[in-house]
Amino acid sequence: MSKAIAGPEIERLIQLLARVPGLGPRSARRAALHLIKKKEQLFAPLSSAMAEALERVRICSTCGNVDTSDPCTICTDPRRDGATIIVVEDVSDLWALERAGAMNARYHVLGGTLSPLDGVGPDDLNIKGLVSRVAEGGVSEIILAVNATVEGQTTAHYITDQMAGMDVKVTRLAHGVPVGGELDYLDEGTLAAALKSRTAF
Amino acid sequence: MSKAIAGPEIERLIQLLARVPGLGPRSARRAALHLIKKKEQLFAPLSSAMAEALERVRICSTCGNVDTSDPCTICTDPRRDGATIIVVEDVSDLWALERAGAMNARYHVLGGTLSPLDGVGPDDLNIKGLVSRVAEGGVSEIILAVNATVEGQTTAHYITDQMAGMDVKVTRLAHGVPVGGELDYLDEGTLAAALKSRTAF
Repeated sequence: MSKAIAGPEIERLIQLLARVPGLGPRSARRAALHLIKKKEQLFAPLSSAMAEALERVRICSTCGNVDTSDPCTICTDPRRDGATIIVVEDVSDLWALERAGAMNARYHVLGGTLSPLDGVGPDDLNIKGLVSRVAEGGVSEIILAVNATVEGQTTAHYITDQMAGMDVKVTRLAHGVPVGGELDYLDEGTLAAALKSRTAF
Repeated sequence: MSKAIAGPEIERLIQLLARVPGLGPRSARRAALHLIKKKEQLFAPLSSAMAEALERVRICSTCGNVDTSDPCTICTDPRRDGATIIVVEDVSDLWALERAGAMNARYHVLGGTLSPLDGVGPDDLNIKGLVSRVAEGGVSEIILAVNATVEGQTTAHYITDQMAGMDVKVTRLAHGVPVGGELDYLDEGTLAAALKSRTAF
């Protein structure tokens, strides 16, 4: 709002809400009004949840995951297979893989991808941490679950180079047709990869 | 998330963020991660802005506006023309009119529209408050700035009936072509109204 008409505290709340991804200036106003209307049902619980999460959130010093404990729940879970580390770019990828629930492994969050154009080098990512986790022993496989983008693949190659000489298998996610996907809508690269990696039916 | 993997406090934050209009379950996760990554720049300021707004927000007992003082800034502003009251359905409409900045009047927020099907009757809206503001005297015009929907117009008629016998002029917003609008995309009702209310050029 150009003019402050709803009190400085509410204006400030709207301004900050507008910086949350998914909300813009207009939807931030709508969100603020909704919160004010649902003061007891939503505004108060959200405010205290936010304060509590803010106070308790930690970045796991082992794998880079976000949790309320350090090391995180996954790193300390004895039922997890510590011999397999799934390497992801971001915590959101870790969450996506956990929702898939296909592997009972541990993770390593890089915090991005190598991108010389954006000035992101190996030291800006959590790659050294990965190397020392492998060097400590007990890890037999590293699954590179990075995005299938140029930056993701560059990062994958760099990590593979770092693992040279260590006794660890480096694998990557399979390329292919997404489950439920229609061939007609897929790009040529994916179709070619799916054909190349065809499996017995 | 079906599985709690990021600590109960973060899960709870995601659940509550998902109930904010404009955010869904998926964007709530993305928003929570963004907040955690921008802990100092965004998460901490937003958390404190939220706590402060929650504590200080008031509904104006005169007009129903949302502010940090009661009566609100607009109701207590001596530069405002107290003889004109703009009646709106919702605080968001008040904010929209304030952004337009076309009138220096006061407001009255109904808190909705009459809607017998949804069980919203006159007593569920802030209509009595409007009648008593007019009855107190000093008000010469009421501008019905309700939405041009069936419910909005029903509410406008009801309020006009309540003002019968009082010394107050009741007006409504003009119908017509939106500024910058193209005729081709307008509905027949709007075009008919714009023709009927044509003005000298």
